[in-house]
Amino acid sequence: MSKGLPKRSEDYSLWYNELVKKADLAENSAVRGCMVIKPYGYSIWEKMQAELDRMFKETGHTNAYFPLFIPKSYLSKEASHVEGFAKECAVVTHYRLKNAEDGSGVIVDPEAKLEEELIVRPTSETVIWSTYKNWIQSYRDLPLLVNQWANVVRWEMRTRLFLRTAEFLWQEGHTAHATAEEAKAETMQMMNVYAQFAEEFMALPVVRGRKSANERFAGADDTLCIEAMMQDGKALQAGTSHFLGQNFAKAFDVKFATKEGGLEYVWGTSWGVSTRLMGALIMAHSDDNGLVLPPKLAPIQVVIIPIYRKDEEFEAISEKANEIMAELRKAGISVKYDHRDTHKPGFKFAEYELKGVPLRIAIGPRDLENGTIEIARRDNLTKSQFELASQPIAEKIGGMLEEIQESIYSKAYKFREEKTTEVNSWEEFKEVLENKGGFVSAHWDGTPETEDKIKELTKATIRCIPLNRKEEAGTCVLTGKPSEGRVYFAKAY
Amino acid sequence: MSKGLPKRSEDYSLWYNELVKKADLAENSAVRGCMVIKPYGYSIWEKMQAELDRMFKETGHTNAYFPLFIPKSYLSKEASHVEGFAKECAVVTHYRLKNAEDGSGVIVDPEAKLEEELIVRPTSETVIWSTYKNWIQSYRDLPLLVNQWANVVRWEMRTRLFLRTAEFLWQEGHTAHATAEEAKAETMQMMNVYAQFAEEFMALPVVRGRKSANERFAGADDTLCIEAMMQDGKALQAGTSHFLGQNFAKAFDVKFATKEGGLEYVWGTSWGVSTRLMGALIMAHSDDNGLVLPPKLAPIQVVIIPIYRKDEEFEAISEKANEIMAELRKAGISVKYDHRDTHKPGFKFAEYELKGVPLRIAIGPRDLENGTIEIARRDNLTKSQFELASQPIAEKIGGMLEEIQESIYSKAYKFREEKTTEVNSWEEFKEVLENKGGFVSAHWDGTPETEDKIKELTKATIRCIPLNRKEEAGTCVLTGKPSEGRVYFAKAY
Repeated sequence: MSKGLPKRSEDYSLWYNELVKKADLAENSAVRGCMVIKPYGYSIWEKMQAELDRMFKETGHTNAYFPLFIPKSYLSKEASHVEGFAKECAVVTHYRLKNAEDGSGVIVDPEAKLEEELIVRPTSETVIWSTYKNWIQSYRDLPLLVNQWANVVRWEMRTRLFLRTAEFLWQEGHTAHATAEEAKAETMQMMNVYAQFAEEFMALPVVRGRKSANERFAGADDTLCIEAMMQDGKALQAGTSHFLGQNFAKAFDVKFATKEGGLEYVWGTSWGVSTRLMGALIMAHSDDNGLVLPPKLAPIQVVIIPIYRKDEEFEAISEKANEIMAELRKAGISVKYDHRDTHKPGFKFAEYELKGVPLRIAIGPRDLENGTIEIARRDNLTKSQFELASQPIAEKIGGMLEEIQESIYSKAYKFREEKTTEVNSWEEFKEVLENKGGFVSAHWDGTPETEDKIKELTKATIRCIPLNRKEEAGTCVLTGKPSEGRVYFAKAY
Repeated sequence: MSKGLPKRSEDYSLWYNELVKKADLAENSAVRGCMVIKPYGYSIWEKMQAELDRMFKETGHTNAYFPLFIPKSYLSKEASHVEGFAKECAVVTHYRLKNAEDGSGVIVDPEAKLEEELIVRPTSETVIWSTYKNWIQSYRDLPLLVNQWANVVRWEMRTRLFLRTAEFLWQEGHTAHATAEEAKAETMQMMNVYAQFAEEFMALPVVRGRKSANERFAGADDTLCIEAMMQDGKALQAGTSHFLGQNFAKAFDVKFATKEGGLEYVWGTSWGVSTRLMGALIMAHSDDNGLVLPPKLAPIQVVIIPIYRKDEEFEAISEKANEIMAELRKAGISVKYDHRDTHKPGFKFAEYELKGVPLRIAIGPRDLENGTIEIARRDNLTKSQFELASQPIAEKIGGMLEEIQESIYSKAYKFREEKTTEVNSWEEFKEVLENKGGFVSAHWDGTPETEDKIKELTKATIRCIPLNRKEEAGTCVLTGKPSEGRVYFAKAY
């Protein structure tokens, strides 16, 4: 199965593309830039969704659904917003097909032209704030804490499976508040929810930070983000949470009667993560043999493979396998018994390695005699014999899964730390970025012009101003002008 | 709250529209025909999704995701399919906006015209079968059992919230099989899954049947369906399951190597239910006071309302309420304690009636003294005193919720039976349809021409040929020609 998977060290980009396809996660469709998320890939996304959805609900949010289409005039109401999205909008102009009169086939009916063009949502601030205008009259209607799971479309020219696709799946939270402070606290809370999800479930350490003005969401006053480090030393923005100020409230005239009897514009936030997280998950942990999945997001946590020559051996092994499965399932562990007789054990081993199943149990006739099983860990490729009498199997496997979850996180954390370098001169900046990659922690004079210049010279952007950075006076690596603290630069996905 | 809800008997249609809005289920958006599903409405849809998704997985299906856009040429590959959907297709023709040179605002960039127009999926058979071509080579790849939760767009001219909207949410199952028999069995299985869901969770009795050729899905060889009866005597198609034969396999050249070494076209099915089910749920059970929700789909099953004048009464009541909530939650019952001091009990009673909460508990100072609570049932509007010492509260409430679920079903079943009439002449047919409505069970000569004629004369269509109909020779009510059995006619949503 893993035959033909390129090595990360030789061609990281090709390795990623091939892995996504060979592990049955996703593939390109006939429509440029739109992907098909295959069942195995989708089952990982479903696990992500379930955890995120739970976390949103625990923080008081409810789900709703808003239209796919946005009237062009709505998108245009917030100036910087339309500026940010205009270049990548899919536009619906007609609503009917008909048979061509010359018999050449089906054509767009020119008579069925829409009066106003509709934009396929690239994000839903405009359509949602136009709705909120009717939902919000008084302070009693606030806060309004709504999330939506949806597909969005951004007509990207260069696409890559999961990382950048014309259509992608995501959730977008849109909240409305009576005060700036509350909205800012919500923005921070949801960034922290994302960080917790990334670290606890994806085993992905992230830097919590703030975007520079250049990298801010189109229409936001402030954008918080979580940034992760991939194995090739490039950064990946894994989630963003925006403080929208009163920008959309003003664009859509959403005011509320205050407790004190006044009338004020509402404060807003929006926040989202997308199927891009799938790309982050794959690129952060996987290896040359295939996927490495953290147990908390693995659709199958344990696979059992029988090793036998004779039918009666198979029967005895199956009996043992069924016992083990029953114990594991009782403990909430997902397990599959792969007893296909059309494939050899070696083939199956490679297949589950490719698919990133955290633990593989092999049982042969000798194991039955000895009361043992062989357990192989996917993350570090180690094998061990386990004596069934020594400990309840569910306890053993449960413990190993926890260990793997932690171990994957630690490895990624260590890697990220190694790939984070403080530099103090422009020469050093370029040298580290060129030869080592990763996060380059450097002083910056705080101007968009310097940021642009650095991007032009090195392709690196400011990934974020870390929230936990020390106050530290310094001088900008490029201009030598004064700086209040270090920011993280990196080349990024 | 329920002020202004029209009576069903006076204007059923207006009653429905108002109820959907006032109970916070959905509303129209700025885009013609596209709705906003509000948080309360969406939370009911989420409960439906969860149960259906579980049932799909239990029958071996997995979820995946396919592109929103379909190249126009794909849609055209299956002749009757494009015929069926061409008139209601939203068409994407451009992929960019720009600022107008005359400063008049944002316009569609004429230079960003797509080479081939893209259709916003009205259903996904074409894009999915074009993908299946790559997934299916051999009998070993079959059956392929995939479902998708998605939004689809059909540019309907007359829309109504939930019942007929330009965009709606649904699931669409698409399966591929080695034999016609297997595909037919799948078609039947999924129709039965829908029927079970409708009856067990929605408390909605349905007729399992087969569509006549006229009403068949565009591209199917056979369409099975479940049909429900609304309170105004109109039928509602609640779910369909299609046997696609080899039509899409032929259109997209999907062949498989058989076990015997041959090469054959694959057999297909597709099946779906949508947010239309929300409309069915509302129209089947609700009354002039508002929603009536079956407990199994109610986002809140029990609401507790304190009745008090003094603060110390409120404290004592709250203590009791918290005790009861803890017990109910332990038993998996969802419960809300509405202790808002901004609204009076009477207002709250009306609000939860409007929202269809199955059980309402009221606790006052007298109740505390007597060790009682008042329990009100939403479905039949009865109230009773319950002595807390007489039975564990979770057992009592759990039992009542079950009773309500059954009672709502029985009522709808009885109504459906009353509204089902056998007729044996054209006069009788017209008379029943006109004055009584409901299902009219009549002999039909089996021709599309007669069906068309009847529709033209009465607006009634064949809802289905019931699967459990008796073999019964007769003569067509309209033409007098021979008939093999009765079919169900009705006016329908």
